[in-house]
Amino acid sequence: MPDLRGFMLPRSPEGRASIVPAPPWHYSGDVLTLEYRTAPGTVARWLPDGLEPAVDEPDAVALIWADWQSCSDAGDELLDPVRSQYKECFAVVRCRYRGETYSRCIQIWVDKDFALARGWFQGYPKKLGSIWMTRPVTVGRAGPRLEPGGTFGATLAANDRRLAEARFTIEGEVETGGSVNALPMLHSRWMPAIDGAGDALDEVVTMRSRDVELGPVFRGSFELTIHDAPGEELGDLAPVEPIAGYWRQVGATFTGGERVS
Amino acid sequence: MPDLRGFMLPRSPEGRASIVPAPPWHYSGDVLTLEYRTAPGTVARWLPDGLEPAVDEPDAVALIWADWQSCSDAGDELLDPVRSQYKECFAVVRCRYRGETYSRCIQIWVDKDFALARGWFQGYPKKLGSIWMTRPVTVGRAGPRLEPGGTFGATLAANDRRLAEARFTIEGEVETGGSVNALPMLHSRWMPAIDGAGDALDEVVTMRSRDVELGPVFRGSFELTIHDAPGEELGDLAPVEPIAGYWRQVGATFTGGERVS
Amino acid sequence: MPDLRGFMLPRSPEGRASIVPAPPWHYSGDVLTLEYRTAPGTVARWLPDGLEPAVDEPDAVALIWADWQSCSDAGDELLDPVRSQYKECFAVVRCRYRGETYSRCIQIWVDKDFALARGWFQGYPKKLGSIWMTRPVTVGRAGPRLEPGGTFGATLAANDRRLAEARFTIEGEVETGGSVNALPMLHSRWMPAIDGAGDALDEVVTMRSRDVELGPVFRGSFELTIHDAPGEELGDLAPVEPIAGYWRQVGATFTGGERVS
Amino acid sequence: MPDLRGFMLPRSPEGRASIVPAPPWHYSGDVLTLEYRTAPGTVARWLPDGLEPAVDEPDAVALIWADWQSCSDAGDELLDPVRSQYKECFAVVRCRYRGETYSRCIQIWVDKDFALARGWFQGYPKKLGSIWMTRPVTVGRAGPRLEPGGTFGATLAANDRRLAEARFTIEGEVETGGSVNALPMLHSRWMPAIDGAGDALDEVVTMRSRDVELGPVFRGSFELTIHDAPGEELGDLAPVEPIAGYWRQVGATFTGGERVS
Repeated sequence: MPDLRGFMLPRSPEGRASIVPAPPWHYSGDVLTLEYRTAPGTVARWLPDGLEPAVDEPDAVALIWADWQSCSDAGDELLDPVRSQYKECFAVVRCRYRGETYSRCIQIWVDKDFALARGWFQGYPKKLGSIWMTRPVTVGRAGPRLEPGGTFGATLAANDRRLAEARFTIEGEVETGGSVNALPMLHSRWMPAIDGAGDALDEVVTMRSRDVELGPVFRGSFELTIHDAPGEELGDLAPVEPIAGYWRQVGATFTGGERVS
Repeated sequence: MPDLRGFMLPRSPEGRASIVPAPPWHYSGDVLTLEYRTAPGTVARWLPDGLEPAVDEPDAVALIWADWQSCSDAGDELLDPVRSQYKECFAVVRCRYRGETYSRCIQIWVDKDFALARGWFQGYPKKLGSIWMTRPVTVGRAGPRLEPGGTFGATLAANDRRLAEARFTIEGEVETGGSVNALPMLHSRWMPAIDGAGDALDEVVTMRSRDVELGPVFRGSFELTIHDAPGEELGDLAPVEPIAGYWRQVGATFTGGERVS
Repeated sequence: MPDLRGFMLPRSPEGRASIVPAPPWHYSGDVLTLEYRTAPGTVARWLPDGLEPAVDEPDAVALIWADWQSCSDAGDELLDPVRSQYKECFAVVRCRYRGETYSRCIQIWVDKDFALARGWFQGYPKKLGSIWMTRPVTVGRAGPRLEPGGTFGATLAANDRRLAEARFTIEGEVETGGSVNALPMLHSRWMPAIDGAGDALDEVVTMRSRDVELGPVFRGSFELTIHDAPGEELGDLAPVEPIAGYWRQVGATFTGGERVS
Repeated sequence: MPDLRGFMLPRSPEGRASIVPAPPWHYSGDVLTLEYRTAPGTVARWLPDGLEPAVDEPDAVALIWADWQSCSDAGDELLDPVRSQYKECFAVVRCRYRGETYSRCIQIWVDKDFALARGWFQGYPKKLGSIWMTRPVTVGRAGPRLEPGGTFGATLAANDRRLAEARFTIEGEVETGGSVNALPMLHSRWMPAIDGAGDALDEVVTMRSRDVELGPVFRGSFELTIHDAPGEELGDLAPVEPIAGYWRQVGATFTGGERVS
């Protein structure tokens, strides 16, 4: 009798039931990155023992909205788009570990289960939310153009409560799209022991995107409001001072990561 | 005491509670139109007394998927995109009335209430559904390009059942985007009498879009499968012979229509 | 060629595509009614010309949450519960018209399209929302019992924003379940003219439930918080002074109403 | 600097951001269990190496629908019911391991993220789905009574496709509620290594409910239809021969499990 097959749960006779196929995973989408400084000392509180804030701009946060289309190598999800499209909103900070500086996602909401499962594998601490982003348009009057003055909204909700809302206005085209989410990721993968005594899985992993293909970067100013809610601590990351916002299209592939401890 | 205000229900002291603001309504979005012939005599059965099928291609149907961003003149919905983005799938046929030929929407599903209400006002017989369309991309490997060979999926579901699924492949760029949905619309606006004796509202109205702005048209071939379901009759419109599919971006404004009987 | 069939839109050859079958409509569900006084003069502002507030308690409001199972006479929806279950939250006031006192629903949110359509037919000004109510339980520790001290939560959200949240605690069993929603309903049915010049449908209708079957009434105290939001005016109905809350199970049938002007 | 807190991801300064609080978790709900025999040899194919089918009725499957209210010890979720109510549908088989016979969940769909996360911790291989169950009623005509002849529907969908639909009719009250899901659970907890080389977490765990409180058991007959779908293998568990169906209310508490290998 052959063993069960499949990348993640549920494993099954044919391996087709897995909540998500094995990597590589390909992504193409629109990404809005809002970089700002939060209250001094905030980021340090969000790092587990062993990680320290970055030396430069230790309290910089990037709150990022993304509207993705994604697929596995077989690509059949692209023709059944309920299984390939999803949106997400996530908070990224930087940290130092063993002398290197990394990016690190500390909170993230997505709106599909396959995306949630990929995140749990990668150490992105995904919960479900409702995420919306204004789309740029090229015809008609119902949307901004990708040009100075173009204004975009972005919102995040979970459990029927609005958690964040932002407004971004393009000022011009630039060369680079922000620094907080630009480094290799350093994530923790945790699963509590079944008897509650510590963790059964407790790893530090790192990963970076491959085959990154970027569209033009549009930089601008933004306003961001964060709301408190039960079961959430996003309010702790409220902005004190904006740095800049960036909108661009991103293509990338994830093939796997490496365990570092 | 001033009277209640607001375009549609609920009318309220300030007029802000209406399920949708008054027209004009602006639209910008992606539209996939699949034109085909259904079984002879089908379209005639879907027309109310007084309307007749078109002389040419009387059984032509366009099944259309659209992914819209929309707003009222004030435009504030664009910055709160949960209130401006929606998707729809709808079936359009042609009909003759008093010597003129019109387009007519005979079934339609949308995924937001403001869109449903606009439809009821316009005579689009909207129900709620779950609608998905593959998006073209310009970077990365997770989507088709707008070029020959680019392949797109489109699906419709309602009440947890898949009702339609299509696959469209671009063959080339053309000048025009199909003929079934190209005429002024002729719609019926019905509301049953509260005591069930006939209709309290029974009008024939016509309308056409204004300020139409169109992107390039990509023509191609398609496969379309329609599934039967309780509470639905979409299966009656199953394709017998494809004509052609068209993908393009559309901008338009709706300012109102006219009653014709 | 036979004419189109079906109670509401879309009308179709077989009449099965209608968003909802014809009445009678049967309902069985849990109903939480919170009665309170709003600021003096508020209810009068929510009545159209020709209607006046009730003489007694003119600013009384009932904000009601209900978790329904419903069906048409054929009853087949009951075995496909995605088409029979829905939740709603609605605000009811009283009004005088031609010397009689009526109940009147001035705002309402539901979570299914068939319920929305029934409301538009009946003059309930329904929009879509997300509605949740704590359920009583008889076993286990995950819920209140229907007995003094049993505490229930109820929430309403729309467009990813929390609009209302309530907490109700049973004090004891009583004989009657509140007075604001206890009279025949007096509703307006409006549909704007297609050219925007006034209304094409403008009726006052009345209706009452038939075959009402009621479970025991549990009366108690409550707290209610209402939040403002764009596109909403529910904040205008914020409570000034609670009257009482009531929880009970309700069965009823709607067979139609009567036009009164 | 104190370390991060929280039972599951995301861990945070205050520990309130976790997708679900730590156990104990309390459950109260309605449970419909449909027991049947699937094709000979099917269950064996769904067991990982080291597990064997039960000796008696090796191909027995229980497909179970449940409509839960749940909470942690603090219980505050009960008053914000969007965070305490969820529905699920799951397939349970029996297996032998080291001489003992266990129950084992091999596929499961839920409709909330907190429930999905609890499942991943417990070894329930949860994906998201849309689950509906007819509710019994005590008043009105819109639902079955808990008595012989009472008929209930139950459906499961995922990714806009109907996966299973069942119809259950009560024949009478009995003492016990089925045997397939009646044993301690034996689950696998797997998480692939971040570099794709095998699993970083690969445990066999067992658990059983505590403080189980059961309502009366209603036994009856049923029909069950399972549909194939991309990304699913539920069709492999199609029924060959019904055993019996059971409806009852269940209260239970989960406090944790034990690792057995």
